[in-house]
Amino acid sequence: MSHPVREFEELAASFEERFQKDRHPAEPEQLYKAAQHLLLLKGKRVRPVLCLMATELFTPVSDDTYNAAAAIEVFHNFTLVHDDIMDRAPIRRGEPTVHEVYGSSTAILAGDVMLVQAYEYLAKINKNILPRVMGIFNDVALKVCEGQQYDMEFESREDVTLEEYVKMIELKTSVLLAAALRIGSVLGGAGPHNQDILYSFGRNMGIAFQIQDDYLDAFGDQRKFGKKQGGDIVVNKKTFLHIRALSVLEGDQKAEYLRLMAEEGEQKINPVIALYKESGVDQWAKDLKEKYFNAAMANLEEVAVVSARKKPLKHLAEFLLERQM
Amino acid sequence: MSHPVREFEELAASFEERFQKDRHPAEPEQLYKAAQHLLLLKGKRVRPVLCLMATELFTPVSDDTYNAAAAIEVFHNFTLVHDDIMDRAPIRRGEPTVHEVYGSSTAILAGDVMLVQAYEYLAKINKNILPRVMGIFNDVALKVCEGQQYDMEFESREDVTLEEYVKMIELKTSVLLAAALRIGSVLGGAGPHNQDILYSFGRNMGIAFQIQDDYLDAFGDQRKFGKKQGGDIVVNKKTFLHIRALSVLEGDQKAEYLRLMAEEGEQKINPVIALYKESGVDQWAKDLKEKYFNAAMANLEEVAVVSARKKPLKHLAEFLLERQM
Repeated sequence: MSHPVREFEELAASFEERFQKDRHPAEPEQLYKAAQHLLLLKGKRVRPVLCLMATELFTPVSDDTYNAAAAIEVFHNFTLVHDDIMDRAPIRRGEPTVHEVYGSSTAILAGDVMLVQAYEYLAKINKNILPRVMGIFNDVALKVCEGQQYDMEFESREDVTLEEYVKMIELKTSVLLAAALRIGSVLGGAGPHNQDILYSFGRNMGIAFQIQDDYLDAFGDQRKFGKKQGGDIVVNKKTFLHIRALSVLEGDQKAEYLRLMAEEGEQKINPVIALYKESGVDQWAKDLKEKYFNAAMANLEEVAVVSARKKPLKHLAEFLLERQM
Repeated sequence: MSHPVREFEELAASFEERFQKDRHPAEPEQLYKAAQHLLLLKGKRVRPVLCLMATELFTPVSDDTYNAAAAIEVFHNFTLVHDDIMDRAPIRRGEPTVHEVYGSSTAILAGDVMLVQAYEYLAKINKNILPRVMGIFNDVALKVCEGQQYDMEFESREDVTLEEYVKMIELKTSVLLAAALRIGSVLGGAGPHNQDILYSFGRNMGIAFQIQDDYLDAFGDQRKFGKKQGGDIVVNKKTFLHIRALSVLEGDQKAEYLRLMAEEGEQKINPVIALYKESGVDQWAKDLKEKYFNAAMANLEEVAVVSARKKPLKHLAEFLLERQM
């Protein structure tokens, strides 16, 4: 092994240190404060760390990977700022959303600024590899916008199939994880096969994560995960559970489910969860998550480097996906 | 002269032909239709042509300049889509705005898609010059967002100075013209002095154009310019005329002006125009435009190429700025 590979915490700390140094105040103050709002609240930094890990599979990380990782993190936060406007979401990371604090107009502009700032990070990458990295980045950026558009369109449709729903989730959330890994691997000098297989790993992991997220909202231990149980049910969010319930419930149960979903308020949480259980939606979700998790693990297995180097990615996937459900 | 230089119409047609070829349908349909809405309505294509002209000052245009020009045009249209949401503007280029047709959420996303598409064009540029072009592009992209933020902040302030107002206009509209010229010159192989002086030319021309735009809204011949006279006055828009009127009107006239501006409706157009004339705001605006126009012409004079090559830029500036006021 020519260089050490690092685990999540160490890479996240290393990313954070370099990332914060780049922040500086600018005028107009409201605009740049709005553009930093979410970034300062931090997140788990999963995407930038995936990018760093993908490079470390092959070579030590350089400034190029840190810059790509920063671009991906800023892009991700940009999508949250604009999505929260569209979804009229009041809270994100436990704090009021950007548009709640600064107003919708400044929030739109702040998102625009963040998207440009993502490209500012990319522009620092070695010019010999920059067009390739930009190609991957631009491609995924469009896909994420497409995913959000489908998500909004699905809100007013009751005939969304599981296949359509998986495709939407893939676009809206999975491909950015996948692209973080692909870009990291490109910057690590990986060949096309390793790039593709890491992309699949990220895609499968992302879908598994979303299924888990939907599952935990209904069936998770509220004390353990800090999220209020049934939040998705109260706001009639389309989830994996909802799509499945619509396709398996029949007769009176289906009528009851539709009646409940048309209701407002928290009193419907328990009856909806009961219907999910009666129709086996909970076990179905567990199995589906397992399927995608196993596919991700099989992808990782296939990456052509010695298995010791893959441990940080394996641990991260297990941490994100196995302990909780 | 090693290659022919072309005038506006020929370059605009050449740009249009290549630009339209790139358009193709994609899913989700609503999103990509929204992202093409303004581009299909066309505009004058002033910015891409400036970019092409700047290259032709020095060398024949190549695909790199066409791609940079396309990036600039798509970026410009992206800013219009998002600005129209913020300004709640119902009409643009004689048609309903993107958010009117597709809704605000899809319009936000469509703008995001357009910004990414601008970078898709940039990514095609020769990698040896790409980082430099991206640096100029990212810088101006942030400045345009800053300008829009100042514009919105000025709406609720009555103490905006002329200096602040010029700076806002510079950021919101001039620097993109300036950057189009700078990028074109960089791709033409121009040295730093020529790059800088062309940037100044664009900046001065942009400010002169905005002063003219404000002037014509109040004093232009409605039949000749197809715009309704006094439109800015009706919506209480901050303009060069308004900023000047506030600083020169005194006593009863100032009180009368403030009272009129607080009114709603078209009946105030004529009395406001009368106050502008009584206080010499009209002549002041003519003189100020002339000052910036002359500065732009002096800049162009200074560009170190034979004057025959500068004719298309000179004609374009005259066409945009001299005939009308």
